[in-house]
Amino acid sequence: MVSCELYDCDVPDLFARRAKAKKLTLEYNTTIGYENDLEKRQEHLKKLFGKVGPNCIIEPPLQVDYGENTEIGKNFYANFNCVILDCAKVIIGDNVLLAPGVQIYPATHPLDVETRHRKGLEMAHPITIGSDVWIGGNAIILDGVTIGDGAVVGAGSVVTKDVAPNTVVAGNPARVLRTIAN
Amino acid sequence: MVSCELYDCDVPDLFARRAKAKKLTLEYNTTIGYENDLEKRQEHLKKLFGKVGPNCIIEPPLQVDYGENTEIGKNFYANFNCVILDCAKVIIGDNVLLAPGVQIYPATHPLDVETRHRKGLEMAHPITIGSDVWIGGNAIILDGVTIGDGAVVGAGSVVTKDVAPNTVVAGNPARVLRTIAN
Amino acid sequence: MVSCELYDCDVPDLFARRAKAKKLTLEYNTTIGYENDLEKRQEHLKKLFGKVGPNCIIEPPLQVDYGENTEIGKNFYANFNCVILDCAKVIIGDNVLLAPGVQIYPATHPLDVETRHRKGLEMAHPITIGSDVWIGGNAIILDGVTIGDGAVVGAGSVVTKDVAPNTVVAGNPARVLRTIAN
Repeated sequence: MVSCELYDCDVPDLFARRAKAKKLTLEYNTTIGYENDLEKRQEHLKKLFGKVGPNCIIEPPLQVDYGENTEIGKNFYANFNCVILDCAKVIIGDNVLLAPGVQIYPATHPLDVETRHRKGLEMAHPITIGSDVWIGGNAIILDGVTIGDGAVVGAGSVVTKDVAPNTVVAGNPARVLRTIAN
Repeated sequence: MVSCELYDCDVPDLFARRAKAKKLTLEYNTTIGYENDLEKRQEHLKKLFGKVGPNCIIEPPLQVDYGENTEIGKNFYANFNCVILDCAKVIIGDNVLLAPGVQIYPATHPLDVETRHRKGLEMAHPITIGSDVWIGGNAIILDGVTIGDGAVVGAGSVVTKDVAPNTVVAGNPARVLRTIAN
Repeated sequence: MVSCELYDCDVPDLFARRAKAKKLTLEYNTTIGYENDLEKRQEHLKKLFGKVGPNCIIEPPLQVDYGENTEIGKNFYANFNCVILDCAKVIIGDNVLLAPGVQIYPATHPLDVETRHRKGLEMAHPITIGSDVWIGGNAIILDGVTIGDGAVVGAGSVVTKDVAPNTVVAGNPARVLRTIAN
């Protein structure tokens, strides 16, 4: 599945993996994610994600497809309503801030009806988010995108192409607004 | 209410219908929607919606105003956080895919303050989504819109006008990007 | 914190205030917000917000950072999935309608990596929403914005600047579409 080719997400093995992730997120979103003990929250997130660095804070509710395909660096913060469709790898660097409702979508579908609906096949392309990145509220990161270190994505952006390091993008589709002198 | 004229949504009958829908969605969003038994989930959705075809999968959480005004064809899939404000009819064809956070809004309000706030009246216009349609994440479908068979709506789009069959639209407001040779 | 300067949101006092707000919203989003007794819901919202006028209806789920920094007038209605990051004051007038998923973000972050990630400082600027305002679904109101009385914000808008009274804005970023003769 993680190799970017068309695949069938309804096979039992993949259903079971998503079911496991949904059980863990349900627990996180109704009890554990509200604990004041941040260590307990982090221990739970370690069960969900493929990798989680120290000091990872995610405000519930959170939704993920698999979790296991997502690797997160240290000092991560995601506010309410983050959605990660990690049908392919999602690699997140250190010190990344996600405002509420950020949507990370490696999953995608073919444009032609025959493949999309008759055969029921889908695709996925990895997303990479560098270190020191800030992504604004409700921004959408589409499949295959790489966001460079130190970049800022404006609230409500739809990011369809790679974002260079230390660059501010915004809009639908997202366009470069300026570069940052870091 | 479903006849597109101004109406008062605070009358007791409509409040009771919304309360029933909210009770059913709360159950779905906290327990039943997480069952691995897809038949059990489907049986619950049949209580909520006016009509549901076979093989309807909706990932919780889901939010609806009434449910009873929404009719869904076979092989429907809606990912996390779907919102349907079905104050007027919502008719969805077969083999429709909704990415996370799709917003379907038949409900709307008058622009003038006197009618909107002093009299408290609102309006609703039906939405029709054809068969074999794919709607991208966080896309918003506004009141009165019809989306043709085989169309694709890009993630983050705000759809203010009808979409022709086999057409890709995207943007805010959504514009035609290309047609698909199906 | 509410004075618009850079501050550290990780100090224990602020963490405790957010934890209190999260406990109250969790209760609202899983039980109380689904009560048919609107008075009971209103009593709960009075515990959460700094000020709440009579006839305040909020459909769960709701997410807030502090609650105590938000003051709401009479006859308020917010549909599903409202998010308020009230790290600075949020002042809302009378007769305001929020469609689903409206995002109110006084919170923001510096653009330079050094301040944002190394020092971990953030900023916040108050948001004021006048009376008789209608904000469309999934619209985002950014830090420091004032929306005038009687204004209408289109669904999916990203509001980066003040909106004059009796004006319709829409788009990303939001631009003036027309004025309303009220």
